[in-house]
Amino acid sequence: MIIVMNSAASVTEISSVIRKVEQLGFKPYPSRGAQQTVIGVIGQPGSNTPEALAEVAQLPGVAQVSPVDKSCKLVNREFKPEPTVIRVNGVAIGGDEFVVMAGPCSVESSSQLMETARAVAKLGGRVLRGGAFKPRTSPYSFQGLGEEGLQIMLAAKQETGLPIITEVMAPELVPLVARYADIMQIGTRNMQNYALLEAVGQARKPVMLKRGMMSTIDEMLQAAEYILSNGNMQVMFCERGIRTFEKATRNTLDLSAVPVIKSMSHLPVIIDPSHATGRKDCIPAMSRAALAAGADGVIVEVHPRPEEALSDGPQSLLFDEFEDLVNQLRPIAEAMGKTMV
Amino acid sequence: MIIVMNSAASVTEISSVIRKVEQLGFKPYPSRGAQQTVIGVIGQPGSNTPEALAEVAQLPGVAQVSPVDKSCKLVNREFKPEPTVIRVNGVAIGGDEFVVMAGPCSVESSSQLMETARAVAKLGGRVLRGGAFKPRTSPYSFQGLGEEGLQIMLAAKQETGLPIITEVMAPELVPLVARYADIMQIGTRNMQNYALLEAVGQARKPVMLKRGMMSTIDEMLQAAEYILSNGNMQVMFCERGIRTFEKATRNTLDLSAVPVIKSMSHLPVIIDPSHATGRKDCIPAMSRAALAAGADGVIVEVHPRPEEALSDGPQSLLFDEFEDLVNQLRPIAEAMGKTMV
Amino acid sequence: MIIVMNSAASVTEISSVIRKVEQLGFKPYPSRGAQQTVIGVIGQPGSNTPEALAEVAQLPGVAQVSPVDKSCKLVNREFKPEPTVIRVNGVAIGGDEFVVMAGPCSVESSSQLMETARAVAKLGGRVLRGGAFKPRTSPYSFQGLGEEGLQIMLAAKQETGLPIITEVMAPELVPLVARYADIMQIGTRNMQNYALLEAVGQARKPVMLKRGMMSTIDEMLQAAEYILSNGNMQVMFCERGIRTFEKATRNTLDLSAVPVIKSMSHLPVIIDPSHATGRKDCIPAMSRAALAAGADGVIVEVHPRPEEALSDGPQSLLFDEFEDLVNQLRPIAEAMGKTMV
Amino acid sequence: MIIVMNSAASVTEISSVIRKVEQLGFKPYPSRGAQQTVIGVIGQPGSNTPEALAEVAQLPGVAQVSPVDKSCKLVNREFKPEPTVIRVNGVAIGGDEFVVMAGPCSVESSSQLMETARAVAKLGGRVLRGGAFKPRTSPYSFQGLGEEGLQIMLAAKQETGLPIITEVMAPELVPLVARYADIMQIGTRNMQNYALLEAVGQARKPVMLKRGMMSTIDEMLQAAEYILSNGNMQVMFCERGIRTFEKATRNTLDLSAVPVIKSMSHLPVIIDPSHATGRKDCIPAMSRAALAAGADGVIVEVHPRPEEALSDGPQSLLFDEFEDLVNQLRPIAEAMGKTMV
Repeated sequence: MIIVMNSAASVTEISSVIRKVEQLGFKPYPSRGAQQTVIGVIGQPGSNTPEALAEVAQLPGVAQVSPVDKSCKLVNREFKPEPTVIRVNGVAIGGDEFVVMAGPCSVESSSQLMETARAVAKLGGRVLRGGAFKPRTSPYSFQGLGEEGLQIMLAAKQETGLPIITEVMAPELVPLVARYADIMQIGTRNMQNYALLEAVGQARKPVMLKRGMMSTIDEMLQAAEYILSNGNMQVMFCERGIRTFEKATRNTLDLSAVPVIKSMSHLPVIIDPSHATGRKDCIPAMSRAALAAGADGVIVEVHPRPEEALSDGPQSLLFDEFEDLVNQLRPIAEAMGKTMV
Repeated sequence: MIIVMNSAASVTEISSVIRKVEQLGFKPYPSRGAQQTVIGVIGQPGSNTPEALAEVAQLPGVAQVSPVDKSCKLVNREFKPEPTVIRVNGVAIGGDEFVVMAGPCSVESSSQLMETARAVAKLGGRVLRGGAFKPRTSPYSFQGLGEEGLQIMLAAKQETGLPIITEVMAPELVPLVARYADIMQIGTRNMQNYALLEAVGQARKPVMLKRGMMSTIDEMLQAAEYILSNGNMQVMFCERGIRTFEKATRNTLDLSAVPVIKSMSHLPVIIDPSHATGRKDCIPAMSRAALAAGADGVIVEVHPRPEEALSDGPQSLLFDEFEDLVNQLRPIAEAMGKTMV
Repeated sequence: MIIVMNSAASVTEISSVIRKVEQLGFKPYPSRGAQQTVIGVIGQPGSNTPEALAEVAQLPGVAQVSPVDKSCKLVNREFKPEPTVIRVNGVAIGGDEFVVMAGPCSVESSSQLMETARAVAKLGGRVLRGGAFKPRTSPYSFQGLGEEGLQIMLAAKQETGLPIITEVMAPELVPLVARYADIMQIGTRNMQNYALLEAVGQARKPVMLKRGMMSTIDEMLQAAEYILSNGNMQVMFCERGIRTFEKATRNTLDLSAVPVIKSMSHLPVIIDPSHATGRKDCIPAMSRAALAAGADGVIVEVHPRPEEALSDGPQSLLFDEFEDLVNQLRPIAEAMGKTMV
Repeated sequence: MIIVMNSAASVTEISSVIRKVEQLGFKPYPSRGAQQTVIGVIGQPGSNTPEALAEVAQLPGVAQVSPVDKSCKLVNREFKPEPTVIRVNGVAIGGDEFVVMAGPCSVESSSQLMETARAVAKLGGRVLRGGAFKPRTSPYSFQGLGEEGLQIMLAAKQETGLPIITEVMAPELVPLVARYADIMQIGTRNMQNYALLEAVGQARKPVMLKRGMMSTIDEMLQAAEYILSNGNMQVMFCERGIRTFEKATRNTLDLSAVPVIKSMSHLPVIIDPSHATGRKDCIPAMSRAALAAGADGVIVEVHPRPEEALSDGPQSLLFDEFEDLVNQLRPIAEAMGKTMV
């Protein structure tokens, strides 16, 4: 259920509606747009929301009360027609800027990360990525440096000013990771790890939700709803390739997800061409395509010496390849009416 | 690395090898077969196991020291050539019996579950299934009765004698679920939830690991390795359909997984035709096929009134349909040299 | 549109209805069942069949006139509730017998085929397969012996009495192949080659239509409709694996296709475990499963010396492996109430 | 086998090499590049090309003789490093221009096509598409106007000057379609219809080969090799979406195919966002992305009244939507250093 207020509704009217909703036993999620305020209402599963809320429709300042597809409310464009812009450390994601996030797959050492962070900052990257806790298919593969990795990332942030994004893999790690990260990443294997989604939903840090390699766009939107309905509205999606029969690339990048998500949701969309293709020769073309398709940014893997990387070497760009990528993006950003720093 | 002992090796010789392995800083996993004892050895990632263990090869009673594919050791048939048989409350899974597990998708009420449990027990079912914690795509769908559901299942076990299997969704719930369940189920969305795999790996209850709906067989084996390498050898696999383009069935049941897994691993394989097809008219044919393909059992959904089910109604069998299914299986079990109670 | 006659309708009444349908400009397809005669009616695309045929409903002997899903009429179970049994050279496909078809992927020489044909005949095979015209991904691969291959197959038939099945790849080859073959096979790449479907539809020889490796069951049924609506009712389906992300097997055998097709159509279903899995160690398990799932037969690759085969060696059974396979099938056939010679 | 001539090789030297290759029983395919001439050599399957050609390596003017992956020679970038540019009626495909092809799915009437052709020509389209022979899943769907449709297209070409592209579905139709079409299209269902590929290979008209919805990029390249090895070098690829589990779009557009194909082949690549997504709201974003990814053009469906279209209405653009699309492409083309008329 969504309550749309008149564009002329006063703050008092809005507050009254919110109070009423709470008195009736529901949770209100007000969203103040440039045009008007919209209030998402979530009840108990099985409760008869429409009937219970009939009297709300009569309150002063209410323009319209409308039902919304049950499984996807707060994520829905109908709930919030204006795009959500997420601000981290001076970078706005989801607005006019096309944001390039870059860094190594794993934080391997202080020197490796610092060297990379300086290059990323200098060459046009705006967010620093790096894995401290790594989900690995085999229990015998390198699992990341853990909290030491987070400390190294924080040091890199302090020197370069780049906000940092890093993965959180388990509910009990959310408080720790939230202390260091500017954006918490939910990895592809955890898109439907509901305990984890609820945990980041209760945190106060932006979240990047990566699409499950086996998940539909609709399921990703519903997974995001777990985060928003727990109170955290700062969510961005990341398309990172889905599994298909094609073997030339590691996964198949589903770029159509950009217009599809934009038609359904107000949340930003980032593209990860590194994991999607697994081939560094495809990253520039797919980054340009992401920008032209209307994505809000890309996240790419950069490593000073890919041949020595502990994970994902073959898909990591060298610094000069990264510079070349950014230079290819600038004129297309301009053609798209987007800015790049 | 795997150490194969002579068939004539004494207990003292075996103990000496185990002690030596520990002294060298590795974890030994001895497995006593009918023919000979085999000891799996797991070291630190990155450590040079072969070199460090060179002296072990010289110890008395050691027949052979051989490297095994790094990512999949304890799960591997080479480590343990004889099939693993998992015993729960008098039922042996992975041996001569073809085991039918049945019950509702969700525990909805005491009466619903009791009625179902009695029918399952009477008609040839050997394990009672039922969900107390339900992973649901939407946060607004019925999420299960939680611990109350577990208590209802325990009561049904006490009355009927059927061991119970139920899903555990988060690491912090493992101790609670392990207290009630005879078999803990890892659902398809959590196949690569490593924190959860490690948690059930440290528990002392058998685990059914369901294949991710878009995970390869190889990834499933590696996911099981997370459980075994944490000390829990009581793992069975469950093939429950994978995602494909075909829409006539909910997923595509990959029955070839049975001979493929059997060629690679010693662990039992169960088939879930209910989730795989989503159509109850396909369940008998696919259950018969599972048996003929060499699976160790099936897990099917049964509900007294499928049209009232809170989840998965269309794929749930009525009691008489379940009876008919079991009757169709008996002659094929006999033809396959398998027993059914 | 389907016209169902009274069970007591006389031959004269049936003839009158057929004549009337033709006079009205439609094509009638009468099917005489044990219970009653049913007449499928096909008109011009866009013509208003129901209205034009209103007067047919009034004719004596007509029990019912009912519309049927437009895209799939003659293939439909509603049109012909009894299973179609296709007889070739004394073998009945689609009836009580579980039919084993076997032979090499390609006819390579007279001695190779003769040796194989004798073994197949002796060990329980009922139809001899062999490719004379081979569709190959690369233009530079062995493309088959052509008509010489067909002559070799005919000689093998004359000696062993086994009817022969072989692929036809192009419309202009249909007359040639139909002269030699007892069953013409449409390969997976040609499932939607409509010119070819029409050509075999106009021939008077049974057809095995193999499922496209990425075609839905529904599309396969509609492809068969092209053959039936051209006048050839002797069609059997073959499930041979579909493309998925799984790499342990060459394709993923979709055995659920058996109950799904049987619920929709009266035509027989054959399973090809050789192409589906590409692994000979999976063929026995998948053949047993096919039988237990209700398939009408299997088609497998057998070769005297697989390591010398010009195509598909790794999935070809040796003669003793084939014998073992047939022996594994017999008790399951008995359990299923099926016969095997 | 590929023979690379010295950049300074004379015409006489080149001719001698070609003659020698023919004398030895092989087929030479000379390709004169800006830098040097390269001669592809194709022999009989099974013949020992390298040995037979040893003496060619000694001829004057020969720089190098090198083997090339057997299944894909003439299509290969190694054979012809410079991009192939295909010229039709004054439009160059594969060069500096980004080419927009547009028109209705099916030619339905003269007025419908003429109206569309005029709009396409006026608004920036460069090639007119339209189906006269339509492959349809059901035999009862509209199958196209046949030769009458081709005549209507020719009239539209004569009025507007736009070259025309249309599908050919069967080998025996190639001479007819080649008489009218500027580009013959091989549809997705026929990508591996080898008789058809050989027939267009022997024609003298450019071919657009659409990727099978179930085919890998590698298989598409090998299918093109059937056309080139029959003598027709004028082939362009078309990526039109592949089948996956995702249901939000009709297929999944695999844009990574652009850099992947460009890394392997010298032939042009066109993107079909209409069939790939099946949603007209996704066409502008995916067309922009195609351009930014490096594709040589797009082919889109345009219809004066999509709601009346006999096929594919929901994915057809109105004229003003088409105009808007072209206007969105222009600045990105400029940013990419491409021209648009």
